[in-house]
Amino acid sequence: MSNFHIGVDLGGTHLRAALVNTQDGQILTSQKEPTHAHEGHQPVMERMVYLIQAVLQEAGIPIENIGGIGVGVPGTPDLLTGDVKFLPNLPGNWRDVPLSRFLNQQLKLPVYLLNDVRCVALAEWRFGAGRGVENMVCYAIGTGIGGGVVLNGKLHLGIDGTAGELGHQVVELNGVPCGCGGRGCLEMYASGPAIAAMGAKFVLHGHTTRIGELVNYDIGKITAATVVIAANEGDPTAQFILQQAGSYLGIAVSSVIVTLSPQKIVFGGGVAEAGDLLLGPVRKTIIERVHMVPLDKVQFVRAELGNQAGLVGAAYWPVVCTQK
Amino acid sequence: MSNFHIGVDLGGTHLRAALVNTQDGQILTSQKEPTHAHEGHQPVMERMVYLIQAVLQEAGIPIENIGGIGVGVPGTPDLLTGDVKFLPNLPGNWRDVPLSRFLNQQLKLPVYLLNDVRCVALAEWRFGAGRGVENMVCYAIGTGIGGGVVLNGKLHLGIDGTAGELGHQVVELNGVPCGCGGRGCLEMYASGPAIAAMGAKFVLHGHTTRIGELVNYDIGKITAATVVIAANEGDPTAQFILQQAGSYLGIAVSSVIVTLSPQKIVFGGGVAEAGDLLLGPVRKTIIERVHMVPLDKVQFVRAELGNQAGLVGAAYWPVVCTQK
Repeated sequence: MSNFHIGVDLGGTHLRAALVNTQDGQILTSQKEPTHAHEGHQPVMERMVYLIQAVLQEAGIPIENIGGIGVGVPGTPDLLTGDVKFLPNLPGNWRDVPLSRFLNQQLKLPVYLLNDVRCVALAEWRFGAGRGVENMVCYAIGTGIGGGVVLNGKLHLGIDGTAGELGHQVVELNGVPCGCGGRGCLEMYASGPAIAAMGAKFVLHGHTTRIGELVNYDIGKITAATVVIAANEGDPTAQFILQQAGSYLGIAVSSVIVTLSPQKIVFGGGVAEAGDLLLGPVRKTIIERVHMVPLDKVQFVRAELGNQAGLVGAAYWPVVCTQK
Repeated sequence: MSNFHIGVDLGGTHLRAALVNTQDGQILTSQKEPTHAHEGHQPVMERMVYLIQAVLQEAGIPIENIGGIGVGVPGTPDLLTGDVKFLPNLPGNWRDVPLSRFLNQQLKLPVYLLNDVRCVALAEWRFGAGRGVENMVCYAIGTGIGGGVVLNGKLHLGIDGTAGELGHQVVELNGVPCGCGGRGCLEMYASGPAIAAMGAKFVLHGHTTRIGELVNYDIGKITAATVVIAANEGDPTAQFILQQAGSYLGIAVSSVIVTLSPQKIVFGGGVAEAGDLLLGPVRKTIIERVHMVPLDKVQFVRAELGNQAGLVGAAYWPVVCTQK
């Protein structure tokens, strides 16, 4: 079996491909291009082929030496057929698109699809912050909140690969409506847009907060990063917002801990870069709430692979799929 | 390997032992005795030995034909040493008590301990309502709420066997204090005592409800069963109480579904006998809240083994522990 695999990340703005040594998780070469998703799925799939070919050419490795291609998609792939079933946030009519078959026909390599956040979790478990444990839960906190669950040394897939939708744990019985169709989902309280919206709300309501100054009171420009900067500068309102978000995240993680009693919880995604401003309240909440699982044996760690995790996990997915 | 195993259930009021055919989960003989836990752990352990011997004698099966003994304990066993670490609700100073070693010395059989609710989950998965699926979550709703999680065809243990503490999922951010030390735990909103307390509250506040009549306004006599009887008779207050409890339970189950995407959720324990009065609202809440997992592929079922589940699961535990 080859140690070289191709990882592809189909993102909303960029399409990325990398040649990865799946023995050690190192990226040998990678390239990216704008996705131009509005052009429709067919041009995007063709661009994906060129990108993979460009990566192989740059690396100077013949295609025969490649073990397979893994593609991380922002939605639900059909794990059996290799079709993309549905991508909620990508234009281009990605409904029942035979992506695996197309790439396989063009490149003559086996192709395996996986949800992009599950790719992140897989990479962090195998090569990053989650390595060395049998049971790990990974939260990726950014524009949305997603995740992945590794149990007994295996990525847990559940029905149609839907396990790990951690942004839709319910944290408020009578909570606000979520884009998923539900209410009170974690994503509405601790994602980047949720934090930004809380920031905007405080500024709009006339609170004296550094958040407003940082964007010259142009409310639409407030992001989670703005709130984090203000909090780091000591702004109490910004700190309160991150504390709120962290409490909700802590509640959600507490429920996961009593259910699965995992050895590690990994926090990744852009919002996790807030560091202790967010993860401090997460830990505090967990310590207050979890008493049935020995917390001294649960590690809370930041993700290590940054925005490479998706590519590395995608490349590692064919290895998992062809094991035994 | 023998098909006959002994299952023991160390309960707060009764000690039970059964000879179980672990091929089909049938109980061949069973006996019970009062636990008399206040006498201390040593007399209880000795009574356990007599009870097992009595079961074997009644069955007329020589001890050499028995594969092993499994004991379900209402708390935390040390899965490695076979000691009972701590039983929160049983008098008799059950702290670091070498129960396995004692039974093994007396009976010359291998002994394996497991949390009693995990025994229930294991039995329901192998022989009851959960059979035939790879991934199942079992809730046992009674005086407390416990559970067990089967993943990939294996009881998931987590750190020190603490996975499955489903009564301590957090369902209210600013919820009421729970006996565990936390706040807002599911157990405070959907267990038998929680339902009884809601019933008592309504009666005390002077609401016209059948609940009061059923106990001749002797508030202390209200149990979850009283509320269920009143609800079955059409009392709207009682129905509201079960609907509330069911909503909270539904919230908790929703979070488990998006995390694990299991094929079956099994509801057992005395409170689950309320049937659709409770489980209707559970299902309704799940349908409202869960949109990321295809619910048409998730089955919601009542437990099938009743109060035999603990004994059968305990007897099956040695089989699991000695597999491969």
